[in-house]
Amino acid sequence: MKPQREKIYIYGKHALMEALANAPHVVRKVFLAHEMEDRELRELLKKHHIIVEAIKSRDAGRMVGEDTAHQGVIAIADPADLMLDFRTFERELRPDEKTMLVLLDELTDPHNVGAIIRSAAAFGAAAVLMPSHNQAPITGAVVKASAGMAFRVPIVSIGNVNQTVDALKDIGFRTYGLVMDGTKNISEEKFDAPALIIIGNEGAGIRQKTLERCDVKLRIPMDERAESLNASVSAAVVMYQWSVRHLGE
Amino acid sequence: MKPQREKIYIYGKHALMEALANAPHVVRKVFLAHEMEDRELRELLKKHHIIVEAIKSRDAGRMVGEDTAHQGVIAIADPADLMLDFRTFERELRPDEKTMLVLLDELTDPHNVGAIIRSAAAFGAAAVLMPSHNQAPITGAVVKASAGMAFRVPIVSIGNVNQTVDALKDIGFRTYGLVMDGTKNISEEKFDAPALIIIGNEGAGIRQKTLERCDVKLRIPMDERAESLNASVSAAVVMYQWSVRHLGE
Repeated sequence: MKPQREKIYIYGKHALMEALANAPHVVRKVFLAHEMEDRELRELLKKHHIIVEAIKSRDAGRMVGEDTAHQGVIAIADPADLMLDFRTFERELRPDEKTMLVLLDELTDPHNVGAIIRSAAAFGAAAVLMPSHNQAPITGAVVKASAGMAFRVPIVSIGNVNQTVDALKDIGFRTYGLVMDGTKNISEEKFDAPALIIIGNEGAGIRQKTLERCDVKLRIPMDERAESLNASVSAAVVMYQWSVRHLGE
Repeated sequence: MKPQREKIYIYGKHALMEALANAPHVVRKVFLAHEMEDRELRELLKKHHIIVEAIKSRDAGRMVGEDTAHQGVIAIADPADLMLDFRTFERELRPDEKTMLVLLDELTDPHNVGAIIRSAAAFGAAAVLMPSHNQAPITGAVVKASAGMAFRVPIVSIGNVNQTVDALKDIGFRTYGLVMDGTKNISEEKFDAPALIIIGNEGAGIRQKTLERCDVKLRIPMDERAESLNASVSAAVVMYQWSVRHLGE
């Protein structure tokens, strides 16, 4: 089954340029206001054979909201087209110790998924992997929460989570599960192998069969008064700690 | 001006017990289903002189939503009562190098405010300070996003941000501003003085006059393809890095 298909609007020149630069194939159609005479943009659209339709600025406002800074530029995109197939992704993957992947194990909140994609871009993840079932798919809300980073970070659609983990372990990935009672404090981890970081569902956490496949069970040390962290915050903290070891200044 | 007053529902025994244990004064009234015969809870309510009204389980479902796990326990609370006055807070403050405060400089997204409160609890912040103007106030949405931690972490209402920063500097706080072009990488900061961490507005960042008061301008190192992080993620990463220096295992 394909992820739920949903049309989203991308608006403003900056956002569209970003989509065109990083993922032109998701852009289905572009509406440009008559006064939008941007040669660079028009040439880029022509280069990618994207249908352009003239629109009145007032109608643009109606389409995406009067208060929206659309600058006379609106695109319709299909976020499902952002997804890479795992086999294709795996074929071109050459992991080394600077490779970090994030795998979402059935997250349900689009804001968390978007925020994780945004953090993944910031902290140098090579891709975000997500199952095609029981997982918040890439929608307009996810793209928005990702602050456009969904166009920059490869997003890989996987079938079975455990089979994917096994396949990545086979090519040298060390798998990290983030759990409340993890045995290793994240600040003590060296992250000196290709890293697969698994983020569990907001309520249930990482499923048992997946947890059994984790080489390292990581823990974020917390004050005793707290019980847990938001899933996107936990993910960001682990990716940050990874990046401290790998991002050159 | 007082923050906007809003009634919120707290539901389920666990959440109510937490509110009663940490902030009993916010609980205005409690509805209990007839079958809810919990002696511990009833005695706690009696001790705090909280009005209890009997309710049918079906009506409870109507009040907070049929799918809600209310367990026959619903409380009405006034989140504005959670706010501590800065003068009161300051009077009892005995800062040492293990004291960390977070100051929100006009954040507008309730989810960010709630998530920061949740992370503040996890990473050992002594309080979250927020201005009473131009700032998302404590509402039901904030309490929900905080996962109940708004009842555990002191939330301090401040008037003028800059005056507050000055007052805290006077009693020995080192002030940290988190900015894109900060001069110090957070992973290199020792955090060896009482710390005031300032988080700027989601769009505009920290205001100039406040930035001028920052002793250290911190930067979270990021991959070149990314432009920024979500405000609650940035806040969490800085608090995490502070906690690495201070939270004993």
